Amino acid sequence: MKKIRAAIVGYGNIGKYVLEALEAAPDFEVAGVVRRNPNDVPDELKAYTVTDSITKLDKVDVAVLATPTRSVESFAKEILSLGINTVDSFDIHGGIVDLRRSLDAVAKAHNTVAVISAGWDPGSDSVVRALLEAMVPKGITYTNFGPGMSMGHTVAVKAVEGVKAALSMTIPMGTGVHRRMVYIEVKDGYDFKQVAAAIKADDYFAHDETHVMQVECVDNLLDMGHGVNLVRKGVSGKTQNQLVEFDMKINNPALTAQILVAVARASFKQKPGAYTMIELPVIDMICGEREDLIRRLV
Amino acid sequence: MKKIRAAIVGYGNIGKYVLEALEAAPDFEVAGVVRRNPNDVPDELKAYTVTDSITKLDKVDVAVLATPTRSVESFAKEILSLGINTVDSFDIHGGIVDLRRSLDAVAKAHNTVAVISAGWDPGSDSVVRALLEAMVPKGITYTNFGPGMSMGHTVAVKAVEGVKAALSMTIPMGTGVHRRMVYIEVKDGYDFKQVAAAIKADDYFAHDETHVMQVECVDNLLDMGHGVNLVRKGVSGKTQNQLVEFDMKINNPALTAQILVAVARASFKQKPGAYTMIELPVIDMICGEREDLIRRLV
Repeated sequence: MKKIRAAIVGYGNIGKYVLEALEAAPDFEVAGVVRRNPNDVPDELKAYTVTDSITKLDKVDVAVLATPTRSVESFAKEILSLGINTVDSFDIHGGIVDLRRSLDAVAKAHNTVAVISAGWDPGSDSVVRALLEAMVPKGITYTNFGPGMSMGHTVAVKAVEGVKAALSMTIPMGTGVHRRMVYIEVKDGYDFKQVAAAIKADDYFAHDETHVMQVECVDNLLDMGHGVNLVRKGVSGKTQNQLVEFDMKINNPALTAQILVAVARASFKQKPGAYTMIELPVIDMICGEREDLIRRLV
Repeated sequence: MKKIRAAIVGYGNIGKYVLEALEAAPDFEVAGVVRRNPNDVPDELKAYTVTDSITKLDKVDVAVLATPTRSVESFAKEILSLGINTVDSFDIHGGIVDLRRSLDAVAKAHNTVAVISAGWDPGSDSVVRALLEAMVPKGITYTNFGPGMSMGHTVAVKAVEGVKAALSMTIPMGTGVHRRMVYIEVKDGYDFKQVAAAIKADDYFAHDETHVMQVECVDNLLDMGHGVNLVRKGVSGKTQNQLVEFDMKINNPALTAQILVAVARASFKQKPGAYTMIELPVIDMICGEREDLIRRLV
C-alpha cells in the first residue's frame, strides 16, 4: 500500500498530537514538520525533516495545518497552490463560509482539495448536528460544552491588566447555557477584587455566569480533558418528542489531531475544491477497504 | 422550487409514517402510493393516487420502499430500471454488501441512484459508528438496543406452537448484551410452561437471558418507542480513554420513515450507483441551501 505523505505545518500543542496520530495511522507517513524555528527539534522529531518551508520537503501529498486559526487562510492558499491538499481546524464559526469560498477557488484552480474547520467543534459535532437534523428536522439542538478549558476565554483573561496567569473553564449548565470558572494568579501590586471585576465586565464574560478565583499556581490546574453534550428534541415527520443525545469526554488536542488525520485521508476521495466535514462521506475518513467497512460498520 | 416527487411502495406501518414525513417535508410531494390492494384506501390516502403498479403513477423521481426487507431487492431492481431512484431500509446486516453490489450495477446501467439500508440501524447508527471510528480509531464500540420491541424476535415467538399473540422486548444490559422479555397469550389447550420452554430453546433466544411471561392481552403492551445507546472507548492517536456516546429514545417507525425521506433527498446529489448511508455526505440529507446549512450547522 502506497502511504499518504503528510507534512505537519506548525508544531504547537495540536501539531504534537498530529505527529502521534500520523505515527499511529497505518496508511500515513510523516513527510516532515514545518515550523518557524527549524532548529528547535525536540526528541520526538529527531527522525524527521524539520524545516521552515514546505517546499523543502519531499513529495508531500497533504499538509495538516496546526497553525493559529488566523493564519490558516494564507498558509492554505500557498500550499494548495503548490498542488498539495490541506486540512485545518479553523474555528471561527462566523468565518467558515468565507474561508470555504476562498479556498474552494484556489483548490479548484490547482486541482487540490482543502478540508476546513475539522476538529470536534467545528468538526465531528457539526456532523452530529447535521445528522440529528436529518433524523429530526423540527426542534432545537443544544450544544453544551465542557467541563473543559476554553482557549479563547483564557486568552481574554490573560489580556486583562493585573493578570499574571489564567485558566477559564467552561462548565455546561444545560440548554446551551455555560458557567465560566476563571482561575487567576494576580500580579504584584494589583488588587484581586478589581482584577476580578474587570474580567467580569469583559465582553467575553459579561453575558455568562462568571466566577473568578485567585489561586497560587494556575499551572497545577491545567488539564486538556474536555467534553460536549449535544441534545436535540423534536419532530420526525409528524411524531413529536424524538430525543437524541451525543456525549463525549475526551483529550481535546488528541481528538482534534486525530480528526485532522481522518479528513486528510478523506481529502483524497473528493473532487477538487474546499469542504467542511458535513460535506464528506464519513466512510472516507476511515482506513480500510470500502466493502469491509460497510460490512463492519453499517 | 421544483419539488421532489416521491412514491411510497408498500403501505404498512413504515409506509404510513413515510406519508407523514413526506407531507411534512417542504421539498417533497407525494406522487402516489403503490400497494397490493389499491382498493384499500384509508382516509389519509384519499387525496392521493393509490395503485398496484408504480408505472401507473405520474413523473415519479424516487420510490421509498416500505416493503418487507426480503422483497426490497426485486422491487428496487424493477424501479431503478424505470429510471427512478430508490431508497430502502433493508436490515439484514449480513446481506448489505451483496444488495449494494446488485443494485449498484442496475442503478449505473439506468443512470439512477439507490440508497440502501437507511433507517436507524442499519442507518443513522451506522453513520455514528463510522464517525466514532474516525474520531477514535482503536477501541470497542458497543451498540445497546432498547428498551423496545424487536420485530424479528416477536415474529420468531409467534411461530412457536401454542402462541396466540406475542411481544418480544429487547432490554439493554450494557456492552452489547441484551435481555429478552417475552410476553405471550397462550392458545387454548396449550401449557404455558411447555410453550415458554420451546421459546427459550429457539435459536433466536437460546443465547440471551430470556424471560417469558403469560399475559391476558399482548395488544395492551404494544408501544412503538425504541432506543439505542452506542458507546465507544478507545484511542485517538496515542491518547487512551477517549469516551464517546450516542443515545436516543424515539418512535421507531417515525424515525425510520424520516430517515428514508432524508436519503431520498440525498439520492439526487449522488452519481449513479448504490450507496449505504455512511457513503453519503450528511449535508445532502437536509433540506436547505448549502452555504446556509454550513453557516448554521458547522
